[in-house]
Amino acid sequence: MENFVFYNPVKILFGKGQIAHISGEIPADAKILMTYGGGSIKTNGVYDQVKSALAGFDVTEFGGIEPNPHLETLLKAAEVVRSQGINFLLAVGGGSVVDGTKFIAAAVNFAGDPWDILAKQASIKTAIPFGAVLTLPATGSEMNPTSVITKGATQEKLYFASPLVFPRFSVLDPESTFSLPPRQISNGIVDAYTHVMEQYLTYPVNAPLQDRMAESILQTLIEEGPKTLANPQDYDARANVMWCATMALNGLIGAGVPQDWATHMIGHELTAVHGLDHAQTLAVVLPSTLSIRRDRKWQKLLQYAQRVWNLVDGSEEERITEAIAKTRNFFESVGVQTRLSDYGVGLDTIPVIIERFEKRGFVPLGEQQDVSLEVVEKILTLCA
Amino acid sequence: MENFVFYNPVKILFGKGQIAHISGEIPADAKILMTYGGGSIKTNGVYDQVKSALAGFDVTEFGGIEPNPHLETLLKAAEVVRSQGINFLLAVGGGSVVDGTKFIAAAVNFAGDPWDILAKQASIKTAIPFGAVLTLPATGSEMNPTSVITKGATQEKLYFASPLVFPRFSVLDPESTFSLPPRQISNGIVDAYTHVMEQYLTYPVNAPLQDRMAESILQTLIEEGPKTLANPQDYDARANVMWCATMALNGLIGAGVPQDWATHMIGHELTAVHGLDHAQTLAVVLPSTLSIRRDRKWQKLLQYAQRVWNLVDGSEEERITEAIAKTRNFFESVGVQTRLSDYGVGLDTIPVIIERFEKRGFVPLGEQQDVSLEVVEKILTLCA
Repeated sequence: MENFVFYNPVKILFGKGQIAHISGEIPADAKILMTYGGGSIKTNGVYDQVKSALAGFDVTEFGGIEPNPHLETLLKAAEVVRSQGINFLLAVGGGSVVDGTKFIAAAVNFAGDPWDILAKQASIKTAIPFGAVLTLPATGSEMNPTSVITKGATQEKLYFASPLVFPRFSVLDPESTFSLPPRQISNGIVDAYTHVMEQYLTYPVNAPLQDRMAESILQTLIEEGPKTLANPQDYDARANVMWCATMALNGLIGAGVPQDWATHMIGHELTAVHGLDHAQTLAVVLPSTLSIRRDRKWQKLLQYAQRVWNLVDGSEEERITEAIAKTRNFFESVGVQTRLSDYGVGLDTIPVIIERFEKRGFVPLGEQQDVSLEVVEKILTLCA
Repeated sequence: MENFVFYNPVKILFGKGQIAHISGEIPADAKILMTYGGGSIKTNGVYDQVKSALAGFDVTEFGGIEPNPHLETLLKAAEVVRSQGINFLLAVGGGSVVDGTKFIAAAVNFAGDPWDILAKQASIKTAIPFGAVLTLPATGSEMNPTSVITKGATQEKLYFASPLVFPRFSVLDPESTFSLPPRQISNGIVDAYTHVMEQYLTYPVNAPLQDRMAESILQTLIEEGPKTLANPQDYDARANVMWCATMALNGLIGAGVPQDWATHMIGHELTAVHGLDHAQTLAVVLPSTLSIRRDRKWQKLLQYAQRVWNLVDGSEEERITEAIAKTRNFFESVGVQTRLSDYGVGLDTIPVIIERFEKRGFVPLGEQQDVSLEVVEKILTLCA
């Protein structure tokens, strides 16, 4: 096992009716900015539940945070915070709203150009405290200190992380997700699954508990994912998928083990250039990443094949090939296509993406920093 | 899945050499009380590492915190804190030192008789901040807000819990445990294993991720426990057992599921009356608890039999009986005896323990509050 530091102070309020308890988690004299997205919370009852829970608080609203939240939008929100003396943020929505709110929290008092927080990884000294009411199980942002933001003007999609942007609390009420479109649930399952794979499918470092916990999440997603798609009102299935998505990226399964994240880095470019959903890019890139890099991931691929997919017969090569195929089939079975061609993207995207990487100053990706631009090209070619 | 609140802000510094980093986790102007036990830290190098890391800080020492830490000892420490204006505590030791330090932290500014914190579950309003350097993997106290304290005068062993007594940080350096006597490692394995069982072996609530994470810890303890006993200098084996012990009782596997704890409640009495090690009492009581209460735990016992012990043949009854036998054998295989007679305790202890429970006002134990004193008697009888 590798040395690690683990710290995650997010308070999770999980279950039916928990939105009603948020007032106890917010300072009584808070002046709140409630952030949200396209307004689905106004039709599914969440908006009313939140407003009711915040009765007595001074609440300003800021809606319209888009998927892959835009720097330009968030800077407007930061200006509202400053001009109105707001001292607490409440994100109500999915990962994009939570990520966006983290950036607002960091940008408000940042001295300098807030884009540097992303582009130059400039460290932040303070952040406005905030909580979250999660309405979409997927990104894990509700229990981590990471945020991914897109600059609309240039379609650059970059991330930042800081312990200052851990949510103070996050409410996870599975019922508040019942009305989501199937596509968002499908995406959430693939997103969570890939988050686990980025932290698990690397090389062995003798960390059996971390391995088994990662496999636990994968197995549960394989088991519960189809159930929650087939019956969106099945509380337990939705609750199990929701908790899996949070546990997939709260730092725990990644503590003390190598991490990859090449699939995410390549996927971000596909979203930036072609507008694919984040999870769609992961479903496309992950199987190809595993195929192209199988030699470096050999032992963990064999373990994955056996423990997650019960593949014990055949040669090592055959089991690995089959495990990758099963991964692809799982993504497709939960409704997310896995080929660039499924999204109308041709291989002419490859030089565009390579050039984008080069322009920003490319550092080789992956758990062993051996994913060069040549390897990226091979991976993308296999995604056709 | 049941509703739950999960909150755990303890910062974990895990691995070789991490003791050197504690100065960065303590306020620069802290006046520190360093608490420890019988002095083994002075022979295994931990004392020197800690003192070296604290160079420049104002450090007072308080040694002599005993196993099953005594109220009387801890009140003396609280007096030192008060009289010397100490504002940070650093526990250096095993679970007893960490538990004791939690109590010191809570007792210092408690208005009234500090024994009420335990005996009357009086709520505390403040606690002195503290960190921990763990030298014995076992209790999980390093990452939870719970403390078990013994009143020496009456041999009452009671617990309290408060979010105010989460350690600010805990250092887990497996190397600092290499010199522990085998008995303490054996005890730690049984303690951690039983912590998991108290949260896992109840009844199903459709929480498959929590189940699998619990099974992950059990399987890892079964695999790594014998390795670390056979070769105490095997860093990875010790690291894996150490992380299992922490994960066994940091609130995560118990979130959203029923919990039992009857084995612990009965075990505490055996320690109080007969002085058995905490883990020895668990090794004695757990197999009998599972046997006597098998009807109420039937489904989870079957799942445990299959997933943890690979028992799939035979009748349900046979698989359950075999799983309980394997649990007992595992405890004995790691060096902890499982019968009262192994410790020279006769069945004449039963009326003594029943009377102790009655005197304190007995509330039925277990995940369904159906472990009456009659059931306690049956369990203890089977422990012979």
